[in-house]
Amino acid sequence: MYKAPVEEIAFTLKHVAGLARAIDDGLLGDLGEDLVDAILSEAGRFASDEIAPLAEIGDRQGARIENGTVTTPDGWRELYRDWIAGGWNGLTASETFGGQALPHMLNVAALEMWNSGSMAFALCPTLTMGAIEAIAAHGSDALKSTYLPKLVSGEWTGTMNLTEPHAGSDLGVLKARAERRDDGSYRVFGQKIFITWGEHDAADNIIHLVLARLPDAPAGTRGISLFLVPKFLINQDGSLGARNDLFCHALEHKLGIHGSPTCTMIYGDGRSGEEKGAIGWLVGEENKGLACMFTMMNNARLAVGMQGVAIAEAATQKAVAYARERTQGKAPGWSAAGQTGGMSPIIEHPDVIRMLLTMKALTQGARAIAYSCAHATDMAHRAADAGKHWQERAALLTPVAKSFATDIGVDVASLGIQVHGGMGFIEETGAARYLRDARIAPIYEGTNGIQAIDLVTRKLTLSDGGEVKSLIAELREIAGRVGASNAENFGATENRLNVAITDLQQATDWLLAQLAAGNTADALAGATPYQRLFGLTLTGCYLAKGALADAEDGKAADRIALCRFAAENLLAETTALKDSVVNGASSLAAARSILV
Amino acid sequence: MYKAPVEEIAFTLKHVAGLARAIDDGLLGDLGEDLVDAILSEAGRFASDEIAPLAEIGDRQGARIENGTVTTPDGWRELYRDWIAGGWNGLTASETFGGQALPHMLNVAALEMWNSGSMAFALCPTLTMGAIEAIAAHGSDALKSTYLPKLVSGEWTGTMNLTEPHAGSDLGVLKARAERRDDGSYRVFGQKIFITWGEHDAADNIIHLVLARLPDAPAGTRGISLFLVPKFLINQDGSLGARNDLFCHALEHKLGIHGSPTCTMIYGDGRSGEEKGAIGWLVGEENKGLACMFTMMNNARLAVGMQGVAIAEAATQKAVAYARERTQGKAPGWSAAGQTGGMSPIIEHPDVIRMLLTMKALTQGARAIAYSCAHATDMAHRAADAGKHWQERAALLTPVAKSFATDIGVDVASLGIQVHGGMGFIEETGAARYLRDARIAPIYEGTNGIQAIDLVTRKLTLSDGGEVKSLIAELREIAGRVGASNAENFGATENRLNVAITDLQQATDWLLAQLAAGNTADALAGATPYQRLFGLTLTGCYLAKGALADAEDGKAADRIALCRFAAENLLAETTALKDSVVNGASSLAAARSILV
Repeated sequence: MYKAPVEEIAFTLKHVAGLARAIDDGLLGDLGEDLVDAILSEAGRFASDEIAPLAEIGDRQGARIENGTVTTPDGWRELYRDWIAGGWNGLTASETFGGQALPHMLNVAALEMWNSGSMAFALCPTLTMGAIEAIAAHGSDALKSTYLPKLVSGEWTGTMNLTEPHAGSDLGVLKARAERRDDGSYRVFGQKIFITWGEHDAADNIIHLVLARLPDAPAGTRGISLFLVPKFLINQDGSLGARNDLFCHALEHKLGIHGSPTCTMIYGDGRSGEEKGAIGWLVGEENKGLACMFTMMNNARLAVGMQGVAIAEAATQKAVAYARERTQGKAPGWSAAGQTGGMSPIIEHPDVIRMLLTMKALTQGARAIAYSCAHATDMAHRAADAGKHWQERAALLTPVAKSFATDIGVDVASLGIQVHGGMGFIEETGAARYLRDARIAPIYEGTNGIQAIDLVTRKLTLSDGGEVKSLIAELREIAGRVGASNAENFGATENRLNVAITDLQQATDWLLAQLAAGNTADALAGATPYQRLFGLTLTGCYLAKGALADAEDGKAADRIALCRFAAENLLAETTALKDSVVNGASSLAAARSILV
Repeated sequence: MYKAPVEEIAFTLKHVAGLARAIDDGLLGDLGEDLVDAILSEAGRFASDEIAPLAEIGDRQGARIENGTVTTPDGWRELYRDWIAGGWNGLTASETFGGQALPHMLNVAALEMWNSGSMAFALCPTLTMGAIEAIAAHGSDALKSTYLPKLVSGEWTGTMNLTEPHAGSDLGVLKARAERRDDGSYRVFGQKIFITWGEHDAADNIIHLVLARLPDAPAGTRGISLFLVPKFLINQDGSLGARNDLFCHALEHKLGIHGSPTCTMIYGDGRSGEEKGAIGWLVGEENKGLACMFTMMNNARLAVGMQGVAIAEAATQKAVAYARERTQGKAPGWSAAGQTGGMSPIIEHPDVIRMLLTMKALTQGARAIAYSCAHATDMAHRAADAGKHWQERAALLTPVAKSFATDIGVDVASLGIQVHGGMGFIEETGAARYLRDARIAPIYEGTNGIQAIDLVTRKLTLSDGGEVKSLIAELREIAGRVGASNAENFGATENRLNVAITDLQQATDWLLAQLAAGNTADALAGATPYQRLFGLTLTGCYLAKGALADAEDGKAADRIALCRFAAENLLAETTALKDSVVNGASSLAAARSILV
């Protein structure tokens, strides 16, 4: 069973992502390291002891629908109630609306733990947090005061309604429509699919944020507006009023996250018996709906990245535990003391060691990237100066954090099955669920291919390439410190980090040159390998950063050993990835005709 | 819906694996290319039109058990009856027992198609073929004449009973036991798990091959005997007699291959009401049971490799079809004619092109490796001389074919989901089933980690390293022919192949040196990356072999384009893999302590 790695999380926040420094610099107000530890510890307890035990029943029962009513798995209503009673829903929200105004760093760390406990469950508050953010940034004062307190407390939950059957990655073609009414409200009509927690029984009301088009809207992405459409209308006194004209038509039958209802939502077909049209209110300006979405996109993408980290952590824990218990065959050489005759725990077999170390290194690397991204967001809001730099840093790291963490989430979950052997394929073991759940994360909230396009075309070019340059310079500095450190056992780490950083540098230069020359297709042909190259290089450097912090404290060499393993094994791939970026495009262009 | 790629399969058999040459050399009797085409075409028709349409219901219903009776999914009994009526069960079996004595090459090609249609369904005859092989090689004349005709026809099916809860990869510790009886029969007792198609309703009888220990057997793997234990005993006249004392106790609830009943089998608990003990007969000699298993292991492992190829092919077809239909966003540059404004089919987006080409190249590479392995087996049996060389070649290629094909089966199925975006996560789409089914193949019939150990410790050393050397020399020759060919558009293929071959050579030399020095753990630390290096290098070279055959015929450049894509993108990884092999071991040894 999952046990939240509170110490590891706290260490990564403080010494890799920069939380300790931010506290020292006085940027986080009253927050001290002790309070951080206390919050993480309590979140860890809730995730391990309350959420994780209900994950399996959620997977097995799934969310169920009957006559438009969606029932969550046994125990989940109570779980959600306990969770909001803990105040977890409003960690980062403004104190004005009942939140705790804590740094994003803490929230993503907590999100990791909720998702390790049950990704399907954690999706509910993840969506609510996105809705809060959008309303807080763009909603009128009336909308804020009516909706935010209950959303921040978690009494009501929120959703994001973007996708339609023909409009997924490309929102410019969506068809849902909205009509103005004289009272300042709107009527919303249309069908939305893949709406996470779009309908359920765990909260009193559900506040839908819906992208739709006004009658006179320009075509494409510049004609999309954002509307707030509650399941139950709110009376003047704040009590719940009439049922709005929106319904859940069906739930999807999915590979994973079974406990999370993925809804097809119908707006405005008159089922409520009133005048047709779901009553909604504009959020932000007309035709600026996508801009409102972009406000929250970075955090939402990072939140999905946390799902990758979370599954990887949980899958690794499970695999390590199994590999310690399961005996099979006699391991060769390097053998632990006392290993005589008979069978060894499989954790002593070199191939299993390689799998488990790979899982551990990728998990910790992805975690460090994601937390560093959250750190940049916090700094952008709180640092006295350099706001633009930190904003750009967050923007740059977001696609890498989302894609790398969700890709390794799938890979690590799959390795976890492999470590379990035949038992891994049996559902009751639980290892397979991690793979099934993890598999959606590289897809939603912008597929990882979309992330790669974003990274290459919109993020590398920030400050004319200055932001990525400054990040690469920081990585060089870490590699230099590895070389200068007196810590033993770093092996070839410094050299491997420098090779990786040079690969990243060269691939970056090449991509920027292609973009400058207008060769967009050539640049995009290498976008995915580039994204992985970025993630692997950050992994190596951030593991080294943590190892150096330990080494300076004279602590045990565990982090150094893991960092060295990653540098000498996982990072060996960076040159191949660079080659695919800078030499692969023309072969793609030449071969694409065989597909059509 | 899957459509068997009969032309591609025939081409690979003939011009990459060596079927055409074997026919020309008169090694395959009456078999000519036309007959090969006719057989493949008919098998393809059956797989596409009969099996594939029943795959989804098999997955959804699964095999069901009630009171020890196992029911297959709707339509599968009839499907199996039709399939054996086609004579497909006995393609390679001896004519003495009703088989067709065709080369293994044809059977693995057919197996690929059955598995693309439905892996869960194809598992049934796959197990029967293994049983036929074991009985044919080691059974007494009486066993052969009693059991082989019905097994070869497919009226009865066969199983392999190896695994017990504590004995998976390590069979030396199995506990099932057998007692001698005066009449020459045995009584078998014990529990076996993960028995594929151990009980079902599609055939009249089920012939179990069971590993068990005699009372006076030596400990470990040298004390294991193989027994034939039929579900129904056979009367003197060949009719079915009494129910034997063996039962299916339960079915596993698995991630995939739901239509295939995975049984827990109980032998000899007296449930049949007779004297306790399942009645069985010895196959081969007492205490030599594992040797009997080894006889069929190569073919069984290759058969599992075909599952990887099969899923990869089916998943690729599905993804390509979807990517042609689905429009989203406007693709940049390189654009196909007529692409003005609006949205492009996603198959024109560079990132999707990369995914689909990767899927295609890995599938065709794995297919070529697997067919080449079957070719070596055929040559070992049929070539006038060089029998030992071909036997060793088959032995060398088997772990690579099994592991590489099943690993890429998972990877390609996962990419297939990604290409589908959100739809890929919805079960009704069918893309997710491929991943669920594929995930078992790297585990059973020897995990891919076990394959890697086999490759490094038992296969590289064949003929003192001579066999692997001769294979590498052949690969060099292919790379040389690429360089010498006048075919345009090979790009950097020759260079990339040579780099890969040198990586393989160096890693091989290093491993052999470690083994010679007794550093087994160091060698095994790199066994998995080595196995992948082997598979990727073969992929590049075999794609080139096919491309050269096309080029010599003056045919279209499709194969050259795909080969170049693979060489310039996928093969870029070989140097990293070699580095992990030759430089990675000490970091594993150093870091392993953090796991325990």
